Amino acid sequence: MNKRKLVVIGGNAAGMTAASKVRREQPEREIVVFERGNHISYIACGMPYYIGGQVESGEQLIARKPEVFRDKNIEVRIRHAVTEIDTKNKRVKVKNLAEEKDFWEPWDDLLIATGAAPIVPKMEKIDNSGVFALSSLQSGIDVLNFMEKEKPAKAVVVGGGYIGIEMAEAFIGSSIDVTVIDMASQLMTTLDKDMADILLEYMTEQQVKVFLDEKLVKFEMNSKGRVKSVITNKQTIPADIVILGMGVKPNAELAANAGIKLGAKDAIRVNKRLETSVPDIWAAGDCAESYHLVTRKQVHIALGTVAIKHGLVAGINISGGSAEFPGVLGTAITKFNEMEISRTGLSEKEVKKLDIDYQTETITSVTPANYYPGSENISVKLVVNKENQRIIGGQIVGFKGAAKRIDTIATAITAGFTVQQLKNLDLAYAPPFSTGWDPVQIAARRFR
Amino acid sequence: MNKRKLVVIGGNAAGMTAASKVRREQPEREIVVFERGNHISYIACGMPYYIGGQVESGEQLIARKPEVFRDKNIEVRIRHAVTEIDTKNKRVKVKNLAEEKDFWEPWDDLLIATGAAPIVPKMEKIDNSGVFALSSLQSGIDVLNFMEKEKPAKAVVVGGGYIGIEMAEAFIGSSIDVTVIDMASQLMTTLDKDMADILLEYMTEQQVKVFLDEKLVKFEMNSKGRVKSVITNKQTIPADIVILGMGVKPNAELAANAGIKLGAKDAIRVNKRLETSVPDIWAAGDCAESYHLVTRKQVHIALGTVAIKHGLVAGINISGGSAEFPGVLGTAITKFNEMEISRTGLSEKEVKKLDIDYQTETITSVTPANYYPGSENISVKLVVNKENQRIIGGQIVGFKGAAKRIDTIATAITAGFTVQQLKNLDLAYAPPFSTGWDPVQIAARRFR
Repeated sequence: MNKRKLVVIGGNAAGMTAASKVRREQPEREIVVFERGNHISYIACGMPYYIGGQVESGEQLIARKPEVFRDKNIEVRIRHAVTEIDTKNKRVKVKNLAEEKDFWEPWDDLLIATGAAPIVPKMEKIDNSGVFALSSLQSGIDVLNFMEKEKPAKAVVVGGGYIGIEMAEAFIGSSIDVTVIDMASQLMTTLDKDMADILLEYMTEQQVKVFLDEKLVKFEMNSKGRVKSVITNKQTIPADIVILGMGVKPNAELAANAGIKLGAKDAIRVNKRLETSVPDIWAAGDCAESYHLVTRKQVHIALGTVAIKHGLVAGINISGGSAEFPGVLGTAITKFNEMEISRTGLSEKEVKKLDIDYQTETITSVTPANYYPGSENISVKLVVNKENQRIIGGQIVGFKGAAKRIDTIATAITAGFTVQQLKNLDLAYAPPFSTGWDPVQIAARRFR
Repeated sequence: MNKRKLVVIGGNAAGMTAASKVRREQPEREIVVFERGNHISYIACGMPYYIGGQVESGEQLIARKPEVFRDKNIEVRIRHAVTEIDTKNKRVKVKNLAEEKDFWEPWDDLLIATGAAPIVPKMEKIDNSGVFALSSLQSGIDVLNFMEKEKPAKAVVVGGGYIGIEMAEAFIGSSIDVTVIDMASQLMTTLDKDMADILLEYMTEQQVKVFLDEKLVKFEMNSKGRVKSVITNKQTIPADIVILGMGVKPNAELAANAGIKLGAKDAIRVNKRLETSVPDIWAAGDCAESYHLVTRKQVHIALGTVAIKHGLVAGINISGGSAEFPGVLGTAITKFNEMEISRTGLSEKEVKKLDIDYQTETITSVTPANYYPGSENISVKLVVNKENQRIIGGQIVGFKGAAKRIDTIATAITAGFTVQQLKNLDLAYAPPFSTGWDPVQIAARRFR
């Protein structure tokens, strides 16, 4: 019987998936989860839709409550912050935030699942000013409370990535005037500019003001300490509410302070088994590195799909099994109003930085078939390794049902398929869905 | 310079794709296409949507007109029926249907792309009686003309396959009372019964009367020779219009009469190069066999996606290149109102007939995420080879965006992926599209 005690730092996707897996495999082990926030197991990716009103209550974004885990004999302590990892004596220092008391908790196995934090500009204090960065469920609740109380008429979103796009949709859907600024010369820097520009045109049509190549300088506050405008290097934009969507950074200081090695983008360095540089300490989720299937290097990709897979692999290994993280392609999807956007593998921009001789093709077709009602444009871009004709990346921008086709490309990349093999696939066709050659195949057929 | 003359019998997907490919590769060759019908290059799969009124005119279903091909120096002769193939003297006997004249046309290469014909019960004459089988574009036009003139109130559809489902949708959308009968104990026999029964329940809710295990006996006509009811082995069903959706059979008699060998389901036997048993004679499309990627046997699958790939492969080989047909999985998709249905590879029913030790799992999940508006059930069934854990089949029934996920399964089967590899894929997730594990992966995770 395995009596080793497992301590998990962080009660979200990675941490709770791992804890549950260990519990299933080893009913006898003691498992304690410390979560600094008010909630565990919340679905962070649902937040923009909660703020936008499509999701009715914050409760709906909680996948499982602490009671559910307690029933499984997993001790979950919310509002408990781990402030120090003592690798030598195998214990963590924990602050009970409610009672402001510190204590030491011993462990035999430690899983660090501290997530990532939004990047916030280093400037004047922004608490309670109407400037928000989305991270915890609480931060989403705060935004919604602020909106209900203050009824903002003008919103500025800093950063045109996933959060930026989704929050722009949330605001425009609530009839709030929206401006998006980004210091890059395109939206969605995980896409190539040619693809992102299709989204730019659509968002502009949909009344979102987008300013690119424009850098946040500071916020101007009114006499009550509330934001009244966003000052960029080019202009002053009036704002009653500001959302920061400037990306995230791994929460790895706790690990670094304990001498645990960091890796890509200062995420916690892990091997495929999700072991850190210190024995019996594991890391999973947004705070840890991931193996990239195309570059075969460790990268940092903070996504829920990765976090749950990390959690599962860590859980298997912690409970004495043997699993390796299968790797990522950075597959991601989002939407703005009716437009769907997705990507997988390497973008052209990313490939350019590597020593790979590549080729790209981009096509515009339609879904559904051109003669079927609701037919709209779909653009598909493929990136191919010229040497062996293997697909190494794909991007899709289109409408209803367009973007999930990225999964076909992701599967083909994982299989090591050439563009010829992608073209040869027996994919599903009927007029309400596509053309006889699926748009993904139309793109593949462009390569010679 | 290659002066060999190519004659193509049949001017639809396979024939015209091949002719176009040969023209691109060999501008100097003489190419003649004989088509017995009034139209070439029409999109047969669009017919139910034309009859249902979603597609406004028959013209929209014509991908390319004869003029387009004539401009490319491909001679297209519509209303010309080939009645005999003389393999010894390398010529075909052709009847000009307009002038009722026969003539012999010589060839150096012959491509048989005669398609498939709807199966029609052997019974009294049904011409002009309001009983229709869909095949040519003209047959669709005839149905629509009949509906406009006769304003039928009650329709009976014989056969609950793709055409049956799609025509039921067309009728119900036109406020016509619909009854579907099928001699099988389920709808959609390309699916397993458990999956087809989800559709059955939905169609019933949507006011379609479905009678299974019920066999067509005969039609009853009124004094004007118009259908007035369908008599089955169990009841008499009043009908003002009847659509036969009883499947298709390859148009292979012409080839058989010339001594060309037939294969699976009496389709024309071909190798992967689409060569028939007689030198310089090729076959492509619904009249020919296809190589199945899972059973590794020749099968007969009449689908547009297969026909265009056949045409391309035949065209490459006829023009002196070298290509092999990549194989089929029988991937197919359709919808009834809001419900989407798809399948690929082998069904459980099909596997049972083979000497394969298999395992299946079926899950019900939701798309999009359960807290996102419009979330609806999706059911995914996977069939796995127990010996090596490889996926060999999949079926999906669900709503908005559900069914095209079959492409991920089709790609995984083609790659020879195990269910574990499917589970490990980095697929796209965001709340408007799915849950954190895609439903396809949730099904894969069920296997142990």
